[in-house]
Amino acid sequence: MKRDVKAIVKQMTLEEKAGMCSGKDFWHLKSVERLGIPEVMVSDGPHGLRKQDKEADHLGANESIKAVCFPTACATACSFDRELLETLGETLGEECQAENLSVILGPAVNIKRSPLCGRNFEYFSEDPYLASQMAAAHIKGVQSKNVGTSIKHFAANNQEHRRMSCSSEIDERTFREIYLAAFETAVKESRPDTVMCSYNKINGTFASEDHRLLTEILRDEWGFEGYVMSDWGAVNDRVKGLEAGLDLEMPASGGHTDAEIVEAVRSGELKEEVLDTAVERILNIIFKFTDNRQPGNLNMEEDHKLAGKIARESMVLLKNDGILPLKENGQKIAFIGKFAEKPRFQGGGSSHINSFKVTGALEAVKKYADVSYAQGYDVKEDKADEAMLAEAAAAAENADVAVIFAGLPDAFESEGYDREHMRMPECQNRLIAEIVKVQPNTVVVLHNGSPVEMPWADDVRGILESYLCGQAVGEAQVDLLFGRANPCGKLAETIPYKLSDNPSYLNFPGDGKTVEYREGVFVGYRYYDTKELPVRYPFGYGLSYTTFAYSDLKLSAKEMKDTDRLTVSLKVKNTGDMAGREIVQLYVADKTGVVSRPVKELKNFAKVELEPGQEKTVTMELDKRSFAWYNTEISDWYAATGTYEILVGSSSRDIHLRDAVQLVSTTEIPVKIHMNTTVAELLAEPEAKEIMSGLLKTMMENIGAGDDGESAASEAISPEMSLKMMENSPLRTFRSFAGVSTREIQELIEKLQAAVDGK
Amino acid sequence: MKRDVKAIVKQMTLEEKAGMCSGKDFWHLKSVERLGIPEVMVSDGPHGLRKQDKEADHLGANESIKAVCFPTACATACSFDRELLETLGETLGEECQAENLSVILGPAVNIKRSPLCGRNFEYFSEDPYLASQMAAAHIKGVQSKNVGTSIKHFAANNQEHRRMSCSSEIDERTFREIYLAAFETAVKESRPDTVMCSYNKINGTFASEDHRLLTEILRDEWGFEGYVMSDWGAVNDRVKGLEAGLDLEMPASGGHTDAEIVEAVRSGELKEEVLDTAVERILNIIFKFTDNRQPGNLNMEEDHKLAGKIARESMVLLKNDGILPLKENGQKIAFIGKFAEKPRFQGGGSSHINSFKVTGALEAVKKYADVSYAQGYDVKEDKADEAMLAEAAAAAENADVAVIFAGLPDAFESEGYDREHMRMPECQNRLIAEIVKVQPNTVVVLHNGSPVEMPWADDVRGILESYLCGQAVGEAQVDLLFGRANPCGKLAETIPYKLSDNPSYLNFPGDGKTVEYREGVFVGYRYYDTKELPVRYPFGYGLSYTTFAYSDLKLSAKEMKDTDRLTVSLKVKNTGDMAGREIVQLYVADKTGVVSRPVKELKNFAKVELEPGQEKTVTMELDKRSFAWYNTEISDWYAATGTYEILVGSSSRDIHLRDAVQLVSTTEIPVKIHMNTTVAELLAEPEAKEIMSGLLKTMMENIGAGDDGESAASEAISPEMSLKMMENSPLRTFRSFAGVSTREIQELIEKLQAAVDGK
Repeated sequence: MKRDVKAIVKQMTLEEKAGMCSGKDFWHLKSVERLGIPEVMVSDGPHGLRKQDKEADHLGANESIKAVCFPTACATACSFDRELLETLGETLGEECQAENLSVILGPAVNIKRSPLCGRNFEYFSEDPYLASQMAAAHIKGVQSKNVGTSIKHFAANNQEHRRMSCSSEIDERTFREIYLAAFETAVKESRPDTVMCSYNKINGTFASEDHRLLTEILRDEWGFEGYVMSDWGAVNDRVKGLEAGLDLEMPASGGHTDAEIVEAVRSGELKEEVLDTAVERILNIIFKFTDNRQPGNLNMEEDHKLAGKIARESMVLLKNDGILPLKENGQKIAFIGKFAEKPRFQGGGSSHINSFKVTGALEAVKKYADVSYAQGYDVKEDKADEAMLAEAAAAAENADVAVIFAGLPDAFESEGYDREHMRMPECQNRLIAEIVKVQPNTVVVLHNGSPVEMPWADDVRGILESYLCGQAVGEAQVDLLFGRANPCGKLAETIPYKLSDNPSYLNFPGDGKTVEYREGVFVGYRYYDTKELPVRYPFGYGLSYTTFAYSDLKLSAKEMKDTDRLTVSLKVKNTGDMAGREIVQLYVADKTGVVSRPVKELKNFAKVELEPGQEKTVTMELDKRSFAWYNTEISDWYAATGTYEILVGSSSRDIHLRDAVQLVSTTEIPVKIHMNTTVAELLAEPEAKEIMSGLLKTMMENIGAGDDGESAASEAISPEMSLKMMENSPLRTFRSFAGVSTREIQELIEKLQAAVDGK
Repeated sequence: MKRDVKAIVKQMTLEEKAGMCSGKDFWHLKSVERLGIPEVMVSDGPHGLRKQDKEADHLGANESIKAVCFPTACATACSFDRELLETLGETLGEECQAENLSVILGPAVNIKRSPLCGRNFEYFSEDPYLASQMAAAHIKGVQSKNVGTSIKHFAANNQEHRRMSCSSEIDERTFREIYLAAFETAVKESRPDTVMCSYNKINGTFASEDHRLLTEILRDEWGFEGYVMSDWGAVNDRVKGLEAGLDLEMPASGGHTDAEIVEAVRSGELKEEVLDTAVERILNIIFKFTDNRQPGNLNMEEDHKLAGKIARESMVLLKNDGILPLKENGQKIAFIGKFAEKPRFQGGGSSHINSFKVTGALEAVKKYADVSYAQGYDVKEDKADEAMLAEAAAAAENADVAVIFAGLPDAFESEGYDREHMRMPECQNRLIAEIVKVQPNTVVVLHNGSPVEMPWADDVRGILESYLCGQAVGEAQVDLLFGRANPCGKLAETIPYKLSDNPSYLNFPGDGKTVEYREGVFVGYRYYDTKELPVRYPFGYGLSYTTFAYSDLKLSAKEMKDTDRLTVSLKVKNTGDMAGREIVQLYVADKTGVVSRPVKELKNFAKVELEPGQEKTVTMELDKRSFAWYNTEISDWYAATGTYEILVGSSSRDIHLRDAVQLVSTTEIPVKIHMNTTVAELLAEPEAKEIMSGLLKTMMENIGAGDDGESAASEAISPEMSLKMMENSPLRTFRSFAGVSTREIQELIEKLQAAVDGK
C-alpha cells in the first residue's frame, strides 16, 4: 500500500501536527483517527522486549510483560558474529510483530570510553568498527521483519554521570573516527527506521538541538531518511530541537511542548515546513509498520534456546592452564558463589527485561554432573561474611575443582549512574583469595557488564568471562565449562590491569558541566597498544579448547590507489582435536607518519568454523575508509600516500601474519605559502625546494657550519644539525637572519606559490 | 643618579624611538649619543657568558670569548639548592660586570613536557614550583650585581620542532598551573629586569603579539616593570607586537621594522604613547645598568672551582648496591667510554660556552687512583665498533670495577630540534651489554641533557647521573665516585622506563601547526603518580652514601582558613656514618574531590646538611597558593574547603610522614540555578535541598522504588540506586518525568535562587 503522506500532512491542523511530534504517553505515539493515523507503540530493548502494557506511568518503571532476555550487547559483541546478531534481530522482530510493537529501541552503539560507564553493558565495544558491524546486523535482522529499530544514543553519550546536562568536549577528528563512526556505518549499511538522540551536550550544544549532528551529518552526509526521536526526557528547547532535526519528543510532555511548537509557528519563529517535514518522517515510519504487518512469533521456550546459543558464542575464555574443560565423571566439583544459583545476567534501567525464566549454572549443571554448592557471599554486601567464607572454603577443600561464580551485583552497575571504581565487591575478592588457599584447582566465572580488576588472576587456573549473558546464562556456562561447547568469544574491549591504566582516567567523568575527551582517538586498545602498556587481557583476545594456525597471507595488490579495494586472504587451520570457531582479526597500521594515529586499528574480521585438522581460506576486504583518518583540513576522510601494514591476528596483541601495501592518495591537499611557512614545508615541495636552495646556502654559510673546525660553536654544530635547526624556520625569520625585508619575503612567497601551483 | 627618563623620551625623534625598539646588531642595543643614551650589550647565558665580541654576524654563530661553563639548568635544578643558585647568579653577575654586559639572557624556566625537547638541558624541571625557586634564586644573584636577567622563554615553548610557527594549544587552567607558574613566582619574587618572549604561538596567537600574556598577565597581574624583548627572530608583526607589550625586538632587523613602527605612528594605526612607554621601559633598564656599574670579576680559575662545587651538588646517584664509593687503593679500576676522556658537559645552541678549560674524569682521577682506559665507542657513530668493544671488554675484565662513561652525543640533543627517541646510541648500549658480561662490578656514569632509556639498569651495580654538568664535570664525578664528596642531588624530573610512558607521548610534537597539551596539568610526576605507572626513577629521587630518618611531623594548625599560612616542621636525622645533605620534599594532596587534580604536588622543599648522628628540625611554610588550583570560573586561584594531606618525603614516591589539614575557603562561588541545574547540585545547597525534598519524594514514589518487592524492575533497582539516578536529572526533565510545565519549573527556579541567595 503506497500512501500519499504529504497529502495527509496537508490535511492535519497545526495542533495535530505539533501533537504528532511528542508521545501520547510513555510508550505510544498519538493517533489522528479522522485521518486514519493509527496509534503505535514502541518498546525498550534491545536484548528483549520491555513492553509495558499496564497503564502508563510517568517513569515507565512498572513491570513489563514476561519476555525472553537475550545476552546483552557487551556479551554479544564478543561473538564477533554478524550472522548471529542478525538472527537475534530477526527473532526480536518476530517477537515485536507478535506484541504489536512498531519499533524496538536499540541497538546502542556508544563507545566504551571508560569501564566505569554504568551503561556499558548495553554497548558493544571500545572499537567503532566492531560496534558498527554488530549494530548493522542487529538492525538488518529486526527490520527484515518490518519492525523498526532506533540506533542510540546519538551521540557521544559515554557516561551516566550528569548525562542529561554534561557537555562532551570532543575534537572533530575524534568525534568522526571514534564516536560517530559506529553510527555512520550502521546507518549507511542497514538504514534504521529511527535514530535516538542522546541526553548530553556535545561541545556545548544539546544533541537534541544540534542541527549539524541531526541534519547535516545524519541526513545530508549519511542519507538517513527515518525520524529522530529524543531519548526519554532529552528535550531541552523543543522548538530549537525541531529546527535541528529532532522529529519526535519522547515521552509525553503534558501538551506543554506541543503548545510551544504551535506558538512558534504562529509567531513566525518556526517555519511550518519544518514541522511538516518532521510529521511526514514520523508518519512514514508509522505506516511502514502498520501497512506491512506480518505474523509474529513469541515462542518463549524456543527463543530461550536461541538465548543460550548466543550466550555460548559470546562468552570469553580468558585463562585456562589445562583445568578446563571439567570432567563430567571422576571429578568432585564445587560450585561456589551466589551467582551460580541466581546469576546476574542483565543490567538495570530501561533495558531491564522481565524474563519468563532464568537458568543458573547450578540448575543447568544437573544434566552433566553432581556438584556441591556454597553461597560464598551476600550479593548485597561489600564486606565478607566469615561464616559464608568458611563454608565455601570447606566445600572447595572437599572437591577436586572449585568453580567460583563471581562478578558485579546490580547495585554496582546500572543505567543512571557510573561505577566509582573497577573492583569487584570486597567479599568476592576475599572469597577467591580464601578458596585458592585451600584449592589450587580453581576456576572463576565472571558476571559483569564491564571489566573488573582481577587481583587474583594469577592465582586461579581458569577464568570464563560471561558478561551479562541473558536468561540462559547457566546453560551456556555449563556447556562451555564441561566442553560440550567450545569457547569462541573474544573480548570486544581491553581488560586493563587497573582503572588508572584506562585512557580516560584523568578525564572521567568530568566536573559535571563538561567532560573532556582528551585522549582523543586513543580509546581502548588504540591507547594501550600505542602506549605499549601491559594489559590484563587485550582487545580481541579469547581462548579455545583447540588451537589454530595462521598462514599464507595474500594481498590482491602491493600497490593501490585510495579508490581501489584490497582483498586480503589467509589460511586458518584447526591444529587441535576439537571442532572450534576462530575469530580472525584484520588490523591496519598507518606507517606514513603524516598524522598521529594508533599503532593499529581493526578494519575487518571473520569468524571461521573448523573441524579438527581442517583448513580454510578466509577472505576479507579493505577500502579507502580502512586506511583513512578524518582530515579536518579538508573535512573529509583521507588516506595519505605511503605505506600501510596489514596485520592479521587472533587478538590486537597476537599478530600472526603481516604484509604491507603502498597506497597512493588521489586527493590533493592545496599548499598555501605564507610568512610562517617553514623551510621544512617548502623543502617538501620539489618546485619550492629548487627556489629555496640558493637562500639556504647563504644562511648555511652565515652559520659557518662545517667550514671552520676551530670555532667552539661550530665544533658542536654539524652541518646536519644546522639543517635540522633551519628546517623549523618560517620565512618571516629571514628578516632577522638573512637581512631580507618584509617586502622581499612577500615577493618570494608569490614566486614560491606560483611555482607550487604550476605543478 | 636619578634620571628623568620621561624627559629624555620626549626629546627623542619618532625615528629614534622606533630605533630604540630593535637591536643595533646581534647583541647590542642602539645608542642615541646626542641624548646620552649609551650603547649596551646583552649576552647569551645562562650557565656562563657567551659574549661575542667579534664583528657582528647575522646568526650570532661566531666564536665567543673564553669563559667558564657552569653546570646547565637540568643539572643545577637537581641541587634543589636556592643558595647555590644564588651564588651562581652572583658569580655570573660579577663576570658580566667584568665584561660590560648589561643583561645575561636567562634563566630559562620552560617546563619539561617531553624528554625529547632538544632544549631541555637549558630548563630546570617538570615541576613549576621547583623551576620557580631555582630561577628566582638565579635572578636574585645576578641582579644583586646590578646586571639584568631575562627570564625566558615566555611562554609555553616546550619543544624545538616548528618552534617558530607552531601553536601550543593549552587550556587556561593548565597554562596557569603548569606553564606560567614558574614565570609568575620568579617574576613576583625576584623581579627580573627583562622577560624574553618565546617564538611560538599560544592558542593561535604569537607570544610576541599576545597582549593578554605580555601586558594583562605579566604586568597588570604580576607587576612586572622591566622590558620585554623578543627571542632572536620571534617577531612576526612588529606593530602588533609593540601594542601587545613587546618592547624590544632582537636582533637587528635592518631598519625594516623600525620603519614599520614609524609608519604606523604616522598613519595613526599605532598610538605614539605605546611607543613612548616601550622606549621608557628599555631606557630604564639601560640606565639601571650604566648608572650602577660596579667592579666586575672574571677570575676564571676561581669560578671553575665554583663550577665543580655546583656539579658535585647537582649530580644524582641513581643506583648503588654497595659498589660505590670506589676504593682509592686496592681496587683495579677501568674507566671506559670516550666521555671519560672528553666529557659532554653542555648543550648546543645559543647557550654554548667557549670554555677556557674542561676537566674530564680521566684527567681528574689521577689525583686519587691509577685507572686503565678504553674508548669504547665513537661519539659520532650509532653503530658499535667491534674492535673498540673488544678492547673495552678486555679492560673491564682485567679490572675489579668498570666505570662506563656514557650518554648522549651533541648531535642527539641541541637547541633547534628535538630528539626522535629516548635511547642512547646503539653503540653505547651494546658497550654496556658487553661489559656486564665480563665484569659484574660495573658502574655507569651518564652525560645527557634529558633522560635516556636504561635497558641495562638492572644489570649494573651503580648509576651516577651527571646531566650536562659544566666544565669541571670530571672533578665532580671523581669526587663523588670515590666518596670524597657525598652525592646529594635529586631528580628534578621523572625518568620513565620508556618514551611511550611519557604523558605527552601521543601529542608530541604535534602536526607542525599546532601541538595539543592534552595531558593538561598531568605533567611529569603529576601524571606518573596519578596514573600509578611504574617509572625507572621517580621525581625527587636520589641516593646518598649515608642514610636519613624522618620523624616528628608537626603542623602549626589542624584547621586553617585559606588566608592563613601553615607551618610544617619535622626532624631529619643522619643515621649513617658519613656527613651528607638531604633534600626534604613537601607535597600537598587535595582530598576535597572538587576537581580533578594530581595525587600530589610539590609545594616546598629544604636542603639540610647533617653530620653522622646529627638531627635537625626542618621548617617549611605553606600558603593559599600551596593548596590552590586555578579556577577558570572565577579566573583566580582557589582552594576549596576540605581536607588536604601534607606529605613529606625523600622523593615523590618515598613519602615518610603524612598528616592532614582542614582548610576553609573564604571565597564564595556564586550559584546560578537554571533549567539544567541538576538535582545533585541542588541537594548540595542546604536551602535548595529543603525546597526540593517534596518534589523528589513524589518522583521516588513514581519510580515505585522500594514499595513493590514483586516488580522485576524494582527488584533490580534499590532506593539508593534510584536516588543516584535521579541526582543526574536537571530541572528541565521534571517536564517529562513529573508532569510539570516549563513555566512551573521557571517559577521553581526563581524560588530556589531566592533561597540560595538569601543564605
